Amino acid sequence: MREVYIIGAAMTQFGKHPDRSLRSLGFEACLNALRDAGVRPKEIEAGFCGNALAPALQGETGVGQNVFWEVGINEVPIVNLENACASGSTALREGWMAVAGGFHDMAIVAGVEKTVMPKGTMLNVGAGEFETKLGEVFPGYFALIAKKHMERYGTTSEQLAKVSVKNHLNGSFNPYAQFQKLLTVEEVLNSPMIAEPLTLYSCCPNSDGAAALVLCSARKARRFKGQKIKIAASVLTTGTYDNERDITSWEVERRAAEKAYQMASLGPGELNVVEVHDAFTISEIIHYEGLGLCLPGEGGRLIDKGTTELAGNIPVNPSGGLLSKGHPVGASGVAQVVEIVWQLRGEAGKRQVKNPRVGLAQIMGGNKEGDTRVCTVHILIKD
Amino acid sequence: MREVYIIGAAMTQFGKHPDRSLRSLGFEACLNALRDAGVRPKEIEAGFCGNALAPALQGETGVGQNVFWEVGINEVPIVNLENACASGSTALREGWMAVAGGFHDMAIVAGVEKTVMPKGTMLNVGAGEFETKLGEVFPGYFALIAKKHMERYGTTSEQLAKVSVKNHLNGSFNPYAQFQKLLTVEEVLNSPMIAEPLTLYSCCPNSDGAAALVLCSARKARRFKGQKIKIAASVLTTGTYDNERDITSWEVERRAAEKAYQMASLGPGELNVVEVHDAFTISEIIHYEGLGLCLPGEGGRLIDKGTTELAGNIPVNPSGGLLSKGHPVGASGVAQVVEIVWQLRGEAGKRQVKNPRVGLAQIMGGNKEGDTRVCTVHILIKD
Repeated sequence: MREVYIIGAAMTQFGKHPDRSLRSLGFEACLNALRDAGVRPKEIEAGFCGNALAPALQGETGVGQNVFWEVGINEVPIVNLENACASGSTALREGWMAVAGGFHDMAIVAGVEKTVMPKGTMLNVGAGEFETKLGEVFPGYFALIAKKHMERYGTTSEQLAKVSVKNHLNGSFNPYAQFQKLLTVEEVLNSPMIAEPLTLYSCCPNSDGAAALVLCSARKARRFKGQKIKIAASVLTTGTYDNERDITSWEVERRAAEKAYQMASLGPGELNVVEVHDAFTISEIIHYEGLGLCLPGEGGRLIDKGTTELAGNIPVNPSGGLLSKGHPVGASGVAQVVEIVWQLRGEAGKRQVKNPRVGLAQIMGGNKEGDTRVCTVHILIKD
Repeated sequence: MREVYIIGAAMTQFGKHPDRSLRSLGFEACLNALRDAGVRPKEIEAGFCGNALAPALQGETGVGQNVFWEVGINEVPIVNLENACASGSTALREGWMAVAGGFHDMAIVAGVEKTVMPKGTMLNVGAGEFETKLGEVFPGYFALIAKKHMERYGTTSEQLAKVSVKNHLNGSFNPYAQFQKLLTVEEVLNSPMIAEPLTLYSCCPNSDGAAALVLCSARKARRFKGQKIKIAASVLTTGTYDNERDITSWEVERRAAEKAYQMASLGPGELNVVEVHDAFTISEIIHYEGLGLCLPGEGGRLIDKGTTELAGNIPVNPSGGLLSKGHPVGASGVAQVVEIVWQLRGEAGKRQVKNPRVGLAQIMGGNKEGDTRVCTVHILIKD
């Protein structure tokens, strides 16, 4: 298995882009990733595009072919990948495999999404129509998880709110974030209730946006002048029914993290910067535990200690996370890695973590309880 | 790059399955492919699922996770791939890469589709809404191609009709085919006109169905008792705007075929059995030329000579092709390879080609003129 480097990273502003097409957003991200790498489109040997909702929402398939064509990439293998919220990171893993396996020396990975939905529509991932009608949609399901975590571990509403406060503070330093305004614990707690205990500011928004990465082999990376970032682990796995016994922890995430640490030959104590899938405040708490940043049930206390703040020991979601940066579904997994690349290069501006060497990005995709879900974990190391 | 073998192949009956879910169809194909291989679900290390239309038509994402879960495959990497009509063959290529690249020793590839569409809906691949409204939908576009081929090369309506007659004859021997009835040239020519010169029986149907393959490395293949089939070439490429100068030939197909022949170290003269993407009768004629089975413009005369009939020198679409077997979009690319596997093993019953050693499957996906398209070519060899 060959070593794979990231030599280009870019993303669009996340937010509402009603006037822009998937092609337009993808074009911007891909063009800037190519410029960042100093690579011409004709040097790209394969393209991997993550998108979750275009066929359902825009009636558009072949999104990758369209996006990469806009930037002058064609006559190469192009593949469209879908794994719900993990679509973008799945594209990254397939791109990594293509380079690591020796099939290609230089590849582009993109994630693109427009989440404009007809009014009254609910996201229905998997064949969960029955559950959807029962109200078991994402906020409802995560509210149940939050309730259980509070009951079992004494996690408080204030601790949950602090996740949103931290991520909005980080996002206020991120020019690409959808929301760049500060929130207080009171504002989070007093925002409209969505599904108790989750309020409006406890839930990430739907967003439009795109992100892109340029990957290459060690041989090709030599000519690249900037700080090279190595992909030390790329793990994708699937789980089912894992929540029947304990809805406050995801077995699939623990398994993905364990594999990723093994692959990178390091442990959670060596991480300097982390991006996790904070679709809801409770999710970030549970990801702390799933990734081994703290013991099970200690997630709430970890946020209290400030460990995951920008100046803390393991800063989590310096980008603002999904809560503040936004969540263009198929783009989020790529954008997380863009942030880790920027952080490891020392290019993150006011939200720069101090001299990080190892970063991790985690995202999950899939259905509600009782169904299948995917988790990806990528570990990047400054070369 | 490691050698990759196909040790299991199965498909469902193609046709209309209004009472069955994607999961149900996928389950049947995967279970039978596993049984065919004599492999337990727990031995499968990764799953690749091709599907083109579920998000748009059924509002279902994560199809692969759901289908593979039904058959007991989980806790492994599962990826959903979309490349329009080439979605299934794209899943096969990604599965091939995963095994050839040394990431996994045993993988499953599935293609599943239900094409039930709301009445009056047109398939709109890519961002071609404007063209769709102008009537430039698939049958219209392929009618223009047929007209041009007739004008330039003297191809006749009778020659086009003979493609459908041949494929329906082959399909009549295939218990999995949607249509198992014989047609005459007159019946094809006199069926309702869809877009001149293409009549109803010149166009493939929309279908529901699934197909699956079990892939493994050479090491794992040793224990397999049946006839092993080696993947000698797996090529996926993309093209754009290639039809501006000549709509009667697809540059992307010629390029894919050339790469595949190079990879397998053989030429079109060595093929013993071929499955091509006969979405329309004219498509098969052009694929003869694109794959080098004959010279450009000679496709019509090749069908006249009987070369591509079951008893001919290079039988094409022994399964009945899309025209007779049916076209469940994301499943077709996998089903073509299932047929080639059965032919190479000598298991194709009444439609068995005489002692074939080398088989090829070709399929394209994508947009109408002036936009992007994908082509995959797989070459299989009896080990």
